[in-house]
Amino acid sequence: MQLASLHQLIKERIDASLQDTITQLDDAAPQLKQAMLYALTNGGKRMRPLLVHLTGNMLDIPDNDQRAISMAIECIHAYSLVHDDLPAMDDDDLRRGNPTCHIAFNEATAILAGDALQTQAFTILAEHPMSNYANQQRAKLVATLARAAGYQGMCGGQAIDLAATGKAITLDQLKQLHQLKTGALLTACVEMVCQVTEQLPRQHQQALCRFASLIGLAFQVQDDILDVTATTETLGKPMGSDEAQGKNTFPSLLGLEGARQELAKLHQEALQALAGLPYNTDYLVAFTDLMVSRSH
Amino acid sequence: MQLASLHQLIKERIDASLQDTITQLDDAAPQLKQAMLYALTNGGKRMRPLLVHLTGNMLDIPDNDQRAISMAIECIHAYSLVHDDLPAMDDDDLRRGNPTCHIAFNEATAILAGDALQTQAFTILAEHPMSNYANQQRAKLVATLARAAGYQGMCGGQAIDLAATGKAITLDQLKQLHQLKTGALLTACVEMVCQVTEQLPRQHQQALCRFASLIGLAFQVQDDILDVTATTETLGKPMGSDEAQGKNTFPSLLGLEGARQELAKLHQEALQALAGLPYNTDYLVAFTDLMVSRSH
Repeated sequence: MQLASLHQLIKERIDASLQDTITQLDDAAPQLKQAMLYALTNGGKRMRPLLVHLTGNMLDIPDNDQRAISMAIECIHAYSLVHDDLPAMDDDDLRRGNPTCHIAFNEATAILAGDALQTQAFTILAEHPMSNYANQQRAKLVATLARAAGYQGMCGGQAIDLAATGKAITLDQLKQLHQLKTGALLTACVEMVCQVTEQLPRQHQQALCRFASLIGLAFQVQDDILDVTATTETLGKPMGSDEAQGKNTFPSLLGLEGARQELAKLHQEALQALAGLPYNTDYLVAFTDLMVSRSH
Repeated sequence: MQLASLHQLIKERIDASLQDTITQLDDAAPQLKQAMLYALTNGGKRMRPLLVHLTGNMLDIPDNDQRAISMAIECIHAYSLVHDDLPAMDDDDLRRGNPTCHIAFNEATAILAGDALQTQAFTILAEHPMSNYANQQRAKLVATLARAAGYQGMCGGQAIDLAATGKAITLDQLKQLHQLKTGALLTACVEMVCQVTEQLPRQHQQALCRFASLIGLAFQVQDDILDVTATTETLGKPMGSDEAQGKNTFPSLLGLEGARQELAKLHQEALQALAGLPYNTDYLVAFTDLMVSRSH
């Protein structure tokens, strides 16, 4: 199967699983439930579930384990977008061409929906059906996701990003910021799959995590490039919004051509990280190409 | 030891443990770290850690297990206060006589600090040193805390509260709201202690959880009464703020005298829930008295 077809299949599956999980909640707080569903199913590309699936299939872990990890990651990702879009944060009205959660509902509901989606991620890791082996690894999975999502990961990265907005920072600082803000969660996708794989050699896990970290950074460089070059329609959000907000970006630090070179370099390093592994990495190679060449 | 002295001891211990946990984080995002510490250590009464300790000592669970559960609960409690105080939610400037987190820092930092404190709760349950038996129960603890904190608990209760503000609701609806908003987390204190107690008869766990649920509700009734009767100075927040915000309260539904009768009834029911247990429940009885007779 071509990667694009597989991606579509995974997207449909995870959309359905997430929809089921929220729909099955009771109706005690109907608006909050709607907002959680809205935030979780508003047309996300599901790159993280795809990465979980490709890595998981390569390492032969069961579907249930892949699903639990993917759903938990998407809950964290969705909550972070809802909170990042809030007026006090990035103040974005559009996300993937649709009104952001606080516009579609209201600010209080958006804050709560984000909060409850974060909690839901940990409910899923603690309770969603998994294989016997993965079942014994639940605490480790929680620890990994929490580290990637909290102060030492995504939240920390967002705080550094806010503090750096409107100030000049170095390339190393920009990389660290994105390694925390987006890289940590992408790396957690791969790390959690490794944690539910029995008898995986440590150096294979390290190579896969390095791969994930590199494509996380590449993803962000491409994001910054698209913010400068794509149209608002393709992007689903106003183009040039980074510059308008005084954000440090790879093009603002390196120029557009420099950013493209950085992207090519990260692309090569990611492929090198895969090169020594004794698995069929064709899909992961194709995934890397997709990440760096995407147009939205 | 008198309950008041024991309470003071527990408060000092948990304050120190929480301070350590945050202080040990790296300094990548210094303002976020400060805000997390501020939110966690701004003079909370530590009623929940006291309840964990009293129940844990009664059931003979190790200090480390009590500490991990207490710290996780306090992270969730602190995060919920930070987010509840935000302008889009209850818009409170004062909490326990001090500026709320978004006043002391700013809104974006307060949102992120709340988010990262929620994550920290799950990090603690997944990683904090615990006894061998409790170590095997970590996934269950995560599931219990997440249920109490998320849509099916605290977040759901807050959403119902916001939706009910300015509208007339029934006494049953008000009770359900508070059972989710504050009762669920208090019940989780006791439930998590039960989960790390080996060979606890199911009916003992049920009685203890019923006890916790009743004192959770009693706590809220007393909170509503104090909002009407206490001075701003004693309360650490403006008195009468519930009425000013159009909140449904026990005094607004039942009158002040009716609310006091409800409190007495819940007090008696809580003591009855303890009565059949074959443990020394003296401290829990004293704790119940403290909860219903507190003046702030």
